[in-house]
Parts: sequence; structure tokens; C-alpha cells
Amino acid sequence: MSPTEPHIITEVRELRGWAEQMRAEGRRIALVPTMGALHEGHLSLVRLAHARADRVVVSIFVNPTQFGPNEDLKHYPRDLASDLSRLRGNGVDVVFTPSVREMYPEGGATWVEVERLGEGMCGRHRPGHFRGVTTIVARLFNVARPHVAVFGEKDYQQLVVIRRMARDLLFDLEIVAGPTVREPDGLAMSSRNAYLTPEARQQARALNAALHEVRELVRSGELDSKRLVAAARNRIEKEPLAEIDYIEIRDAGSLEPLSRLDRRAVLGLAVRVAATRLIDNTILEAV
Amino acid sequence: MSPTEPHIITEVRELRGWAEQMRAEGRRIALVPTMGALHEGHLSLVRLAHARADRVVVSIFVNPTQFGPNEDLKHYPRDLASDLSRLRGNGVDVVFTPSVREMYPEGGATWVEVERLGEGMCGRHRPGHFRGVTTIVARLFNVARPHVAVFGEKDYQQLVVIRRMARDLLFDLEIVAGPTVREPDGLAMSSRNAYLTPEARQQARALNAALHEVRELVRSGELDSKRLVAAARNRIEKEPLAEIDYIEIRDAGSLEPLSRLDRRAVLGLAVRVAATRLIDNTILEAV
Repeated sequence: MSPTEPHIITEVRELRGWAEQMRAEGRRIALVPTMGALHEGHLSLVRLAHARADRVVVSIFVNPTQFGPNEDLKHYPRDLASDLSRLRGNGVDVVFTPSVREMYPEGGATWVEVERLGEGMCGRHRPGHFRGVTTIVARLFNVARPHVAVFGEKDYQQLVVIRRMARDLLFDLEIVAGPTVREPDGLAMSSRNAYLTPEARQQARALNAALHEVRELVRSGELDSKRLVAAARNRIEKEPLAEIDYIEIRDAGSLEPLSRLDRRAVLGLAVRVAATRLIDNTILEAV
Repeated sequence: MSPTEPHIITEVRELRGWAEQMRAEGRRIALVPTMGALHEGHLSLVRLAHARADRVVVSIFVNPTQFGPNEDLKHYPRDLASDLSRLRGNGVDVVFTPSVREMYPEGGATWVEVERLGEGMCGRHRPGHFRGVTTIVARLFNVARPHVAVFGEKDYQQLVVIRRMARDLLFDLEIVAGPTVREPDGLAMSSRNAYLTPEARQQARALNAALHEVRELVRSGELDSKRLVAAARNRIEKEPLAEIDYIEIRDAGSLEPLSRLDRRAVLGLAVRVAATRLIDNTILEAV
């Protein structure tokens, strides 16, 4: 782990130059794209990056194009000082914190979009969201020129979409997935957990509890998606502040809807708990 | 000019490795993307590339995603042996001739699309065309990793769209435009000229003649787009085999339609001559 402070870069031009030099020296670069408001989940991705490369870049950029018009772009938590202090001592070489103008110099008429994979689940509830994600990630890839890019499994659909985008556009890099990190009571770590009132925070435990119940049902032989989804729904609907966006079971690779667990699957869900939208997921494998 | 034969590469993996090595050695790479059926216009782009870089890659790939369902993908002229013999002695280091499977390994769910710029002109008559172009060009950029990429001004809208795509996605390269090369009688060189019967070939001269007439009118003070377009239309409609797709005057940079030549403009046209679709354009500048 590097004991030194990470170098803060705000300009595309400077990061390009740094990456070019690292590559010329034969160093492997890992990129961890984030929107800041860093928590232990992000730090686990940084540690994965550190293990896979010689140099680690963490980007902190609240990407406007992945927020819908009624979403929380304006209020998304931003605290650079706190983010930097969390990164300290974790072997980060560069923190890239560009302005919106720097990443979208002419407003950005060009979109990178993955068909189908981004359409259901969160895509249905957040139209344009994944298009914004793949567009900014392609830009970040072109600037940081990483050999490895690390994304969290908590955003499972995002991970599948980005993996596909990187493969399709023939980006010469490896996508690495980091396991979801949870609070002691099971709630998946998320920057948006900060929005939760104590009461909502308490009820938000239902998401992980529902995933746990479904895994137990699968273990006991239940393979019917409708019944598994119903069990998750029942668990979450016990919480008065919880409002379900979706609960779905899909093929873990192609994200095709599955009526029966006849292959590796993912159960993904999104729930608004007192207006804060939380997501979580679990892999389901029939044995 | 290199006297040696260009090295033929068919695999993404091999071109990647070659580009990485060239970059490690500090060589500047130029890419000239083509669909083959090479003519003097392409060779002029190769010479531009050669003047701007240490190593020149010519890609030859008939990209299926930029053809519409009723277009000439199947019949597009393909003659690798003749293309290679034309490239000989022109300082080309690598000819990249991948298969469709190599460029679209999983069919390709990911699209790169530029809003607006690709919508009018050829975009209206060839829906999805520019999306196919930008998608394949982004892939080629990611594989050949050029410092410079050269495109012909004959495909003016394509040039503007690609320039914008490269800038928006923060590709670290320079787009260079090569002037249109013409036959002695003024017809712009195009691989599709090979489709023309002698009679159609004769009538196809009307495209350049129309551009010439419009430039003369502008020189004499006519700045009204409608009247300039009408003059071009009249000239082309004299040819019984000619059927106009469009004739338009637009801002040369933004491609916004212009009713009056109050800034640098482009007159673009597409005409079917006995079913062969030809395009041409000219820059118009009021003095």
C-alpha cells in the first residue's frame, strides 16, 4: 500500500499524459469509477484494484447523464475531503475528479448504448440510466486507459451492461467484479443509505432479509420464479415504508427473464424506503 | 515509402499486440479505415496518413451494420488481391482485414450514436447508417489505437459525425480529413462508381457540374439557399437516369440547415443514377 497521498487530477489532458507514461513504463493501470460518497464497498473495490495492477486510479464524478429528470442529481452526496481521507492509505495513486465540462466538453451528443440488457429491471424504472452509465464509462476508459476496471456486484445490471459494452466495443481491458459489502445487519452499503431516517434504515433491512429467504427456499427445492418472487415481495411488504419498484429473477448472464431456475440466475430488486431508492441482488443457483 | 509488402492482420488480438508494441517504441500510428474496393481517393488518404505518422494501418472491412436491409451489402465490391496490389509501394505497414465475427464477436448489442448530426441528409435516407459507422469506427479505434485517423471529405457528413464522436468520447487521437479525389471529368471517386453502366457513368457527371454551378452562383452574389439548391436540382434533373435523394445546404460545422449563406456552409447531395446511389459535396463560402 502506498503511504503517500494520492495525486489529484482534474483535467483529462493530465490523466491521459499520466496513463501514457505509466503504460510506457510497463505499469498495469486499474480504474475504479465512483460517484464519490465513498464507503467500505468502494474501498473493497480499491483493494481488488490494488491486487490486480501496479497503479490505481479512482475516479470521483457524479455523472449527470445517468440521472433522470426527477432523480437526486442535485442532492447526491458530495464530500471530496471526506472521500480523500477515506482513500488515504489504500494504495490509490491518482484520484480523478473532473468537472462536468471536462468530461462533456461540448455537452455530449454521442451516446454509447447497450441494447436489451439495459432495458428491464432498473432500466425500466430509470429510462436512459444505463445509457448514461455506459457513455461515461467509455469516456473514462478512453482517458484513464486502464488494463483493469473494477465495478461492484451490488449494481448487478450495471456490471452486466458494462461488461457487454467493453467486450462489444473491443476495449482492451478486463472487467473485475467486487462482491457486495454489507452493514453488520445485512443492508448493502450504498451512498444513498445516508438519505435514510433511522426508521427507514431499520425497515431497509428487509431487502437483504428477502434475498436470504429466497436463497433458503431455493435450497429447499423451490425453483418457480413466481413463487420465489412472491416470497420476497411478502417479506418486503411487511415494512410500512417500503414500496417495491421491482423484484425479478433473470438469467445471471443474459438477464433474460426466467420463469424457472433452470440455470444460474440473479434475483434483483429495487425498493423505495421512505422515498430512498435502494437496490440489492443475489445469485441463485439450483443445486 | 516502405518498399516492403504490408503485413496482413486478420485478428483483433494480433493488431492490438502490434499497436501496443509500436506505442511502446514511441511510434505514431495512423489508421485509414476503408471498406476496400480501393481507388485513388483511398490512396490519397494513405499518403496523408504516411505524412502524419510513423506507421500506417489500412483497415479493409465491409461493415454490415452501416448497410440498410435494402442496400448493397451483399453486392458491395470485394477484391482483396486487387486492393493489396494497389496499396503496395504506398508505405502501408499493416492491412487489417478482420472477419465480421472478429469485429462483432457476440453479434454486437452495443451502439455508438451521435445525436442530430447523423439525422438529416444521408441519415434520413439511410436510417441507422451513421450509427453503424460510428460503432465500427469506435471499435477500430480501440483495436488499432491510432494517434491519427484519416477520412475522406467525399463522405462529408460521415466526417463530421466521426469527428464529433471522437471528441465526445474523448478518444485521444486526431481526425484528419482528405480532399475528394475526382476522375478527369469531375466525378468524385467512389467504390460504387463501378456499378455504373457507360450511359449512367456519363450522366453522373451532373453531380460535380451542379456543385460547380452553385459555387459560381455564390461567387456572383447569390446567397439564398432555396435558389442555390434549385439551380443544382435543375442541372441534375437534366439527366434522365438521375433521381435526387436530397440536395441540402447546411452549416459546415454543425450541419444545421441554412436558409441563407451567412456562414461557412456545405452543399451536400445524394443522387441515384440508374439505381446507383452517389454522393458529393462542396464547401460554400460567401466572400
